[in-house]
Amino acid sequence: MNESLTNKRHTLAHLLAAAVLEKYPHAKLTLGPAIENGFYYDIDFSLGDAPNDTDLKELQKAMKKLLNKWTEFTHEKVSAEKARTVFAGNQFKLELIDEIEKKGEPITLYTCGGFTDLCRGGHCEHPKEELNPDAFKLEKIAGAYWRGDEKNPMLTRIYGLAFETKEELEAYEKQVEEAKARDHRKLGKELDLFTFSELVGPGLPLFTPNGTLMRDLIVEKIMKIQSQYGYVKVTIPHITKSDLYKTSGHWDKFKDELFHVKGQSDTEFVMKPMNCPHHTQIYDARPRSYKELPLRFAETTMVYRDEQAGELIGLGRVRSITQDDGHVFCTVDQIDQEVENIVNVIKQFYTSLGMFAEGKFWVSLSVSDPNEPEKYLGDKENWKKAENMLEAVAKRLELPYKRVEGEAAFYGPKLDFMFKDAIGRERQLATAQLDFVMPSRFGLAYTDNEGKKQTPVMIHRAIAGSLERFMAIMIEHFAGNFPLWLCPTQIAIIPVSEAHASYAQTVANELRAAGFRVLLDTNNESMGKKIRQAKQQKLPYFIVIGDKEVESVSATIESRDTGISEVLTVKEIIAKLAAEQNI
Amino acid sequence: MNESLTNKRHTLAHLLAAAVLEKYPHAKLTLGPAIENGFYYDIDFSLGDAPNDTDLKELQKAMKKLLNKWTEFTHEKVSAEKARTVFAGNQFKLELIDEIEKKGEPITLYTCGGFTDLCRGGHCEHPKEELNPDAFKLEKIAGAYWRGDEKNPMLTRIYGLAFETKEELEAYEKQVEEAKARDHRKLGKELDLFTFSELVGPGLPLFTPNGTLMRDLIVEKIMKIQSQYGYVKVTIPHITKSDLYKTSGHWDKFKDELFHVKGQSDTEFVMKPMNCPHHTQIYDARPRSYKELPLRFAETTMVYRDEQAGELIGLGRVRSITQDDGHVFCTVDQIDQEVENIVNVIKQFYTSLGMFAEGKFWVSLSVSDPNEPEKYLGDKENWKKAENMLEAVAKRLELPYKRVEGEAAFYGPKLDFMFKDAIGRERQLATAQLDFVMPSRFGLAYTDNEGKKQTPVMIHRAIAGSLERFMAIMIEHFAGNFPLWLCPTQIAIIPVSEAHASYAQTVANELRAAGFRVLLDTNNESMGKKIRQAKQQKLPYFIVIGDKEVESVSATIESRDTGISEVLTVKEIIAKLAAEQNI
Repeated sequence: MNESLTNKRHTLAHLLAAAVLEKYPHAKLTLGPAIENGFYYDIDFSLGDAPNDTDLKELQKAMKKLLNKWTEFTHEKVSAEKARTVFAGNQFKLELIDEIEKKGEPITLYTCGGFTDLCRGGHCEHPKEELNPDAFKLEKIAGAYWRGDEKNPMLTRIYGLAFETKEELEAYEKQVEEAKARDHRKLGKELDLFTFSELVGPGLPLFTPNGTLMRDLIVEKIMKIQSQYGYVKVTIPHITKSDLYKTSGHWDKFKDELFHVKGQSDTEFVMKPMNCPHHTQIYDARPRSYKELPLRFAETTMVYRDEQAGELIGLGRVRSITQDDGHVFCTVDQIDQEVENIVNVIKQFYTSLGMFAEGKFWVSLSVSDPNEPEKYLGDKENWKKAENMLEAVAKRLELPYKRVEGEAAFYGPKLDFMFKDAIGRERQLATAQLDFVMPSRFGLAYTDNEGKKQTPVMIHRAIAGSLERFMAIMIEHFAGNFPLWLCPTQIAIIPVSEAHASYAQTVANELRAAGFRVLLDTNNESMGKKIRQAKQQKLPYFIVIGDKEVESVSATIESRDTGISEVLTVKEIIAKLAAEQNI
Repeated sequence: MNESLTNKRHTLAHLLAAAVLEKYPHAKLTLGPAIENGFYYDIDFSLGDAPNDTDLKELQKAMKKLLNKWTEFTHEKVSAEKARTVFAGNQFKLELIDEIEKKGEPITLYTCGGFTDLCRGGHCEHPKEELNPDAFKLEKIAGAYWRGDEKNPMLTRIYGLAFETKEELEAYEKQVEEAKARDHRKLGKELDLFTFSELVGPGLPLFTPNGTLMRDLIVEKIMKIQSQYGYVKVTIPHITKSDLYKTSGHWDKFKDELFHVKGQSDTEFVMKPMNCPHHTQIYDARPRSYKELPLRFAETTMVYRDEQAGELIGLGRVRSITQDDGHVFCTVDQIDQEVENIVNVIKQFYTSLGMFAEGKFWVSLSVSDPNEPEKYLGDKENWKKAENMLEAVAKRLELPYKRVEGEAAFYGPKLDFMFKDAIGRERQLATAQLDFVMPSRFGLAYTDNEGKKQTPVMIHRAIAGSLERFMAIMIEHFAGNFPLWLCPTQIAIIPVSEAHASYAQTVANELRAAGFRVLLDTNNESMGKKIRQAKQQKLPYFIVIGDKEVESVSATIESRDTGISEVLTVKEIIAKLAAEQNI
């Protein structure tokens, strides 16, 4: 967010406050910052009437009218005493004044169009000239506790949207509308992909047959790609003695955020919130030689994190998180090739989704912050070497990368892949992370070619990340119109009447034998209804079988994406779909 | 165990006691029952010397010598007072006498060969005639707490083996020897299938790449078979609010045996010890019509049970239990066909293991006990109907079944499949269970063809049961010599020298393209060593590639099971292995 836009948004918060005081003179102002898409102001209306959503239009009109008089901002530095006089009776502002005074910071009052507010500054200097009255809009009203603490009084928060231009505001509103239509919770229900149960609990999705098939398709696609690079599957339990995390070092940092597990014995178990410590134990099951390295373990498995109930959103944030996880154990010299392999897997996978394309993603080369070396564990030379290796791979593979200092994990630098979805939202999905810390904490070793013990390096990698979040993002990105390979059902076959059922069955059998997922719709309903259902279910293709098709031993196939109908032989259909599927 | 053999074993416990007292007059006898493979006697030696394993031979000799004088048992009923005189100084026997007196039962003393013991009876009348001195053997010495309570004194338990004949004793000893050689913990390590970590905890196996592949092979085999019968996969989390089990009724019965899960909130979570209640919630995600039934949900997923640390044995009993679980929701009229389908899946699967054969298994038709109707929930008419249906299927499919009263679950009757392993041990593996209770507890419903709400029936089914236990049993049954389809690696290809490496690679590629799991062994070691390794790893086949093979574009393949070598073309090898694999 650029500073000029932030200043405009902040100015609008002042303007809103002025308009509110005109109409609700009993209102007590509190805080009104700029935010990502505009601004808000939290106001205490407890001494009289409060506005509701229907009053926003009028307030907005009042803001625009006031704006004509808001020609120039002035400000003055005042004593705490003076400030207390100005805001007498407003306990919120008085609390703020006390705090600023305690910190020894200057207390400033900003005034425009006759309206004065306690403020640190950051406004347009000439609001009337600089603000476009068509580029902002009051959006909605919500409740908010004073300073976000539920022990404090509840205030009224008025939200506004604000952009540079009317067009940008409209584009934003359209994106929000689009996002609503694509909401994965809504589409997930319509496409019958997952469900929640009150008896099971929030954040714990249950996947229906369709949703499970989609999960499996994702996992199989990734596994098929990465098995070319020597990844092999392993399997671990979902709980562990806390000793595992005491050794890994996670215990001290995260023990309060874990799900703790208690049986009849005294043993302290926890649910795993990540898989790497377990995977080290498979590495450590027997002595390893350099000849075995790299070892590449992959596993799709659920981890559990105690997310706050209020933060759970459909599949977007859950408590049972299926990770498509993988860990490479290798020598320092092997890092370069292994990271290249991971990038290649990411490339192949996201290409199959049409997302690995120019302008649709960028890569964060997340490195350490040279100003805060104490934040990072491990040998400095190794860090430098590793950061350079990651950068070399990024360059060699011509990735659109940016070096972002301070974004490394505490255990090593990483490559984070940031993808733009269909309506412009940026999502971090795939990642490759070097780790110099965990192998030595677990005392992992291999014997090198001179018979000496060495410590391997670990690379953590995720392709889809959490399957739940990935599915949520894909549902919204494609608005349910998934690419062929990702569709639980790919083709509906609709015989026109019973007379065509037997040939339709033949076509279905042939397509199934070729590996396609086919719904043969022989329900006793009209063809029109069946076609509508296939379209509602967003199936990529439907095939109609009538007299013409039976006679010519062919099938009429219509595409969801192009709307084009073609009469093809089954063999031609198989070739066409196979080509589309194997992108 | 027949009564006569039990009596012999019990008689031998007396004989052991007599021999012990001869050599260790300070010993205090406690209890000496017959057990499954012989007998034991728990004896307190705290007042003097105690025997150890090397003394067993001599004790055994003494028993055989005494046996000559043990011509006839006599017994007398005595007063508690008299009994207390006989066993004065033996606090254990005195405790038993007190108990018998309190219960008002008769106190009897049994005597043979001059040795008298407090006993309820159950002996050979003429030990010298009836006991074969070559059919018993003292086995081992162990510690045991008086009456199994660790707060009581530790006693010395002497175990003896005893059978009707010398041959039976030898056969049993051979079986034990065989079982030791086949122990899945030993073979699992040698074949690198799984491992345990002290940091993760007991009963929580970690599966290596080989072991994971084997798990997947089992799961895929079952899924491939049952997908023909309309089974579809679903996915559930491993935890749930306790509400789910409060509704299912499991909470009251099993809450103390569950792993309880605690996060930062007050919500009471538990780890799932079974999957059926979760699966009902997927059924219940939307209204169902009779047209959708039967719905057949399958899932391979871990459940967690808080087994006592002392009872955990390798993969045989674990805390993280992977169930190959499945639940059918259907109408009463559909039960017959669905059970038949399940039996067919079981038949196909166990046929591929060579276990579904005459004399190698039987089926327990586990029905209710008419004398204890209060043990069973649900409508009696339905029970009768269901038991008859199961029996009809068993008859129609010519299953070798026995009706076993009292073995039904509380919620419905079942078919339990009992298989004999290679060394004669019987294992319950597959099962199909009817359930009239859970659907109504969860208020599950479907709309029938008249638009009325009906309650579906549930069928619980398992094919392999727990994957861990199944693997343990298979490892021991096959002694690691798995059938071709179940082998993580199926074929080793061994080039004689570097000159043959390129052709060996071609052969490997062709076999891999045909779907076989091939190890191309290009390590810098002698051919002899490579062949030994392939044999140690119990690979079903190894192929040697030398000059002869390169010239004739063929391969010499040797079978693990027959030891026969053949020179075949790669095409012939593929045809041969495909035929073997698709049994």
